[in-house]
Amino acid sequence: MECVSLDVEAVCKVAELVFLALPHGVSMKYAPGLIAAGKRVIDLSADYRFSEEKAYSDWYGRPHESADLLGEAVYGLPELYRPMIEKATLLANPGCYPTGAILSLAPLVEKGLVELDRIVVDAKSGVTGAGRKATLPLLFPECNESFRAYKIGVHQHAPEIETQVSKLAGKGVKILFAPHLVPMNRGILSTVYCRPVKELSDGELRDLYLSYYKDEPFIRIMEKGKYADTKYVTGLNHCDISLHTHGRSGTVIAVAAIDNLVKGAAGQAVQNMNIMYGLPQTTGLI
Amino acid sequence: MECVSLDVEAVCKVAELVFLALPHGVSMKYAPGLIAAGKRVIDLSADYRFSEEKAYSDWYGRPHESADLLGEAVYGLPELYRPMIEKATLLANPGCYPTGAILSLAPLVEKGLVELDRIVVDAKSGVTGAGRKATLPLLFPECNESFRAYKIGVHQHAPEIETQVSKLAGKGVKILFAPHLVPMNRGILSTVYCRPVKELSDGELRDLYLSYYKDEPFIRIMEKGKYADTKYVTGLNHCDISLHTHGRSGTVIAVAAIDNLVKGAAGQAVQNMNIMYGLPQTTGLI
Amino acid sequence: MECVSLDVEAVCKVAELVFLALPHGVSMKYAPGLIAAGKRVIDLSADYRFSEEKAYSDWYGRPHESADLLGEAVYGLPELYRPMIEKATLLANPGCYPTGAILSLAPLVEKGLVELDRIVVDAKSGVTGAGRKATLPLLFPECNESFRAYKIGVHQHAPEIETQVSKLAGKGVKILFAPHLVPMNRGILSTVYCRPVKELSDGELRDLYLSYYKDEPFIRIMEKGKYADTKYVTGLNHCDISLHTHGRSGTVIAVAAIDNLVKGAAGQAVQNMNIMYGLPQTTGLI
Amino acid sequence: MECVSLDVEAVCKVAELVFLALPHGVSMKYAPGLIAAGKRVIDLSADYRFSEEKAYSDWYGRPHESADLLGEAVYGLPELYRPMIEKATLLANPGCYPTGAILSLAPLVEKGLVELDRIVVDAKSGVTGAGRKATLPLLFPECNESFRAYKIGVHQHAPEIETQVSKLAGKGVKILFAPHLVPMNRGILSTVYCRPVKELSDGELRDLYLSYYKDEPFIRIMEKGKYADTKYVTGLNHCDISLHTHGRSGTVIAVAAIDNLVKGAAGQAVQNMNIMYGLPQTTGLI
Repeated sequence: MECVSLDVEAVCKVAELVFLALPHGVSMKYAPGLIAAGKRVIDLSADYRFSEEKAYSDWYGRPHESADLLGEAVYGLPELYRPMIEKATLLANPGCYPTGAILSLAPLVEKGLVELDRIVVDAKSGVTGAGRKATLPLLFPECNESFRAYKIGVHQHAPEIETQVSKLAGKGVKILFAPHLVPMNRGILSTVYCRPVKELSDGELRDLYLSYYKDEPFIRIMEKGKYADTKYVTGLNHCDISLHTHGRSGTVIAVAAIDNLVKGAAGQAVQNMNIMYGLPQTTGLI
Repeated sequence: MECVSLDVEAVCKVAELVFLALPHGVSMKYAPGLIAAGKRVIDLSADYRFSEEKAYSDWYGRPHESADLLGEAVYGLPELYRPMIEKATLLANPGCYPTGAILSLAPLVEKGLVELDRIVVDAKSGVTGAGRKATLPLLFPECNESFRAYKIGVHQHAPEIETQVSKLAGKGVKILFAPHLVPMNRGILSTVYCRPVKELSDGELRDLYLSYYKDEPFIRIMEKGKYADTKYVTGLNHCDISLHTHGRSGTVIAVAAIDNLVKGAAGQAVQNMNIMYGLPQTTGLI
Repeated sequence: MECVSLDVEAVCKVAELVFLALPHGVSMKYAPGLIAAGKRVIDLSADYRFSEEKAYSDWYGRPHESADLLGEAVYGLPELYRPMIEKATLLANPGCYPTGAILSLAPLVEKGLVELDRIVVDAKSGVTGAGRKATLPLLFPECNESFRAYKIGVHQHAPEIETQVSKLAGKGVKILFAPHLVPMNRGILSTVYCRPVKELSDGELRDLYLSYYKDEPFIRIMEKGKYADTKYVTGLNHCDISLHTHGRSGTVIAVAAIDNLVKGAAGQAVQNMNIMYGLPQTTGLI
Repeated sequence: MECVSLDVEAVCKVAELVFLALPHGVSMKYAPGLIAAGKRVIDLSADYRFSEEKAYSDWYGRPHESADLLGEAVYGLPELYRPMIEKATLLANPGCYPTGAILSLAPLVEKGLVELDRIVVDAKSGVTGAGRKATLPLLFPECNESFRAYKIGVHQHAPEIETQVSKLAGKGVKILFAPHLVPMNRGILSTVYCRPVKELSDGELRDLYLSYYKDEPFIRIMEKGKYADTKYVTGLNHCDISLHTHGRSGTVIAVAAIDNLVKGAAGQAVQNMNIMYGLPQTTGLI
């Protein structure tokens, strides 16, 4: 990791709100000082995404250095937590995988419509999702003409997804998160498999999502028979969701597409900033 | 469909065994004449992959023209049906998606180790899997920088997979088959999710597959911690399978990689021909 | 070609300026009526890019249907013809290849610094440059992992480039135009080889371009030692130009990168509209 | 560079001929010992590709450690130097770029048909051409959807090309070598621009190449109107060459396609080994 050094005092003189686009584990060195100086902070790292210190240290393999702030950090998924975001002092911007996974599961889980102990999230990400690191597995010839799974069940975004979905369900859920690497630059497609607790028709399913997200400018529920495609969200802050049922195996399927660099990262941070400042959510975003 | 015309009489004079690399629905016009003339036939189309006429007509949308041959056609998956292939007169070479899906499910299903009513096969295919058709969705700019699902639960390979897996199980299974399109030329990765009927450790799971496929030159069971990757089977007639468990959600995961143009099509046809002629299976294949 | 039908009368009621984004050969059916009705027209086809009727009919293989308008059409390359564009009634928006080729040659040619009888333009285009046509050579598997030349010396953009560059030179130039197809969606890189009439240092060369384009918001001359790259103009209306000399072989090389869908097409049309309306050139563009 | 250590004594006990697939600058540490022990050596690095010590040290930025062997090393381009290769003790396997460039220029230059002071080689390489190094510019997201030039006139393969082409011409030639990076794994396309000393028709040009390479199993001269394409040499040891003329600008164009990992490296090494052992050239190659 490159050395990152932030002059908190200097920043405090000019800024009211600070975006921390720092590596995981570095944000927590600076956030406390900024908060103490009365600033609002939007953190793009994973440092404040968990409310439990143990979850952080278990998954990121290091102790948390400002665990006392975990309780007041707000998870920045605007479609779910807008009122809290408006007043947030410390905002934890979600990971890219969790954004699509949580948005595609929220309506089903919050309404108690699916079994909670065996949800499968089969996610596929473009290569920018891995960050810009000079390592052999991310070289062009290693990724191009390759499709592979990795970290099945052990990816650090798994507990972030479970934690948030459990919060929506009001009880613990168990999710198998299986990420895959796609030979493309941008985009994540999450295919989510659930078992409904009672039969759900295609129409009911679609109506549920249309209603749940009816005021959300960045959520598009696809027409019946259409499939979410990462291509149609490239450069956008949108999450496209298509819905499918398979009566034969009793499965409900939600497919969510985002651009991991926009709704999955910087775009969502801007959306959160807009909300924190009382601006229209869509300001500066397409 | 282009007009295809085959001079059966001329072919019969020179050939003992005929590969029918014809479009779906055309093979069945020629196979009966060839069989009647005492030839052996390897059919690469879908025409003889079902034993039930109804399954064919339901999924391919046309009546079968030589349904009487369905009963004697052998499904050409050598790892499962070698003794029957040796004596086959009419061999139905499997579809590309079914090859990976069935091979990754066979040990679990045949040994009765998983629940049979809700298996999920999340499959991802390179673009050659769609055939060489001049249509807009297959253009380079439509596929490149795009990842999308299609035909979830309604793909014509779904019943082929279910039929074969049910045969192995000895009873009806229910499989959700969800295909996706990957921006690459060659390769299919199938991620298969099952619920074990009793706990299976990583070691037991791997031993099961090692034992089941112990004499198979084209099946490679990956080491613990490694993941199947389409890159490492490109140009090969191999099926790489990696195995994973997720105790938390009670899931067993098998990931299978094949080259859809080799083990998923022509390579497997050559393997079948080798067996029909009593040659070493690997002749002419890498 | 699909049937395109435009209700000129209806359009005239609501529009003051009309973008004709029609196939080559169709614009000329509608432009005369629109002009006659007092409208201004920005034509994205090739129909009005030549001042000579013969050049059009020779290269596009059909007679011109409104040749009388050829004389008054303005070639819409704003960096070269802004004063005429401001007053244009009929504007011919340039082709994608010519945009990069002409911009990279203009300073050298207009100042008389290079030999005019053997300029080589080796151009490389992403696949969207070919239009959205369902043909086999544009399928993903045909383009991916392929790099090929095509139409060397016989591409329809060759005379468009020669005509414009000759205008700048004040006499006839001879250009070899060699296009190639790159497995990517967007972008054109043009590598242009010229022989200087007298020695030019790297510094003089760069200063020439900096001065020539000093007021142009969409032209970026790269620093010494840097190379133009299509990646850095994706989505932008910019043309990046890097300059190189090779004393040993007496060659001056200009490399120009554009996004063929923006500066090479729609973006440039918007830039032209801005100029025609007296707006800042950059309005609505990035 | 990783530490590479070779036990020359042990190798000498078992080998008669040694392939040195070592990094540039490392081969020259081992070749002398192997030669002294009476072995034949095929070196895949650049260490013995120049006959002049100065050329090596100038371009590779280090002194040569066994310059006395430079004189006896044979440049391993079989189509040009087969008789010398048969008897070679130390064989320098050519670089990937030089292979295509030299093969496409040889007939024109050796027959004295083109001007020698301003040949342009515009070459385009897949990313494996850069070697397997974990550096940012070779990451998937940096290369995908990017097309860029690099090292124009200063690439280390430029002097290798000039040296060999000068040898064929019998006098010094001046070549501008301009490499570009293509977002694909394998393949190099070289577009070579020459000015003929007297007019050459398409037919004469093609006949010249057909005759020059008439006994060469790995050279394919494309039919008139066809273009060399890297796709059709992937995995093959072939060099496809297409020929074009442009009377207007007085240019002759040769386009050569190779797979940089086969004819551009290991495949050509095998071809050389075959020749050194008196085997058919094509043994083990496709």
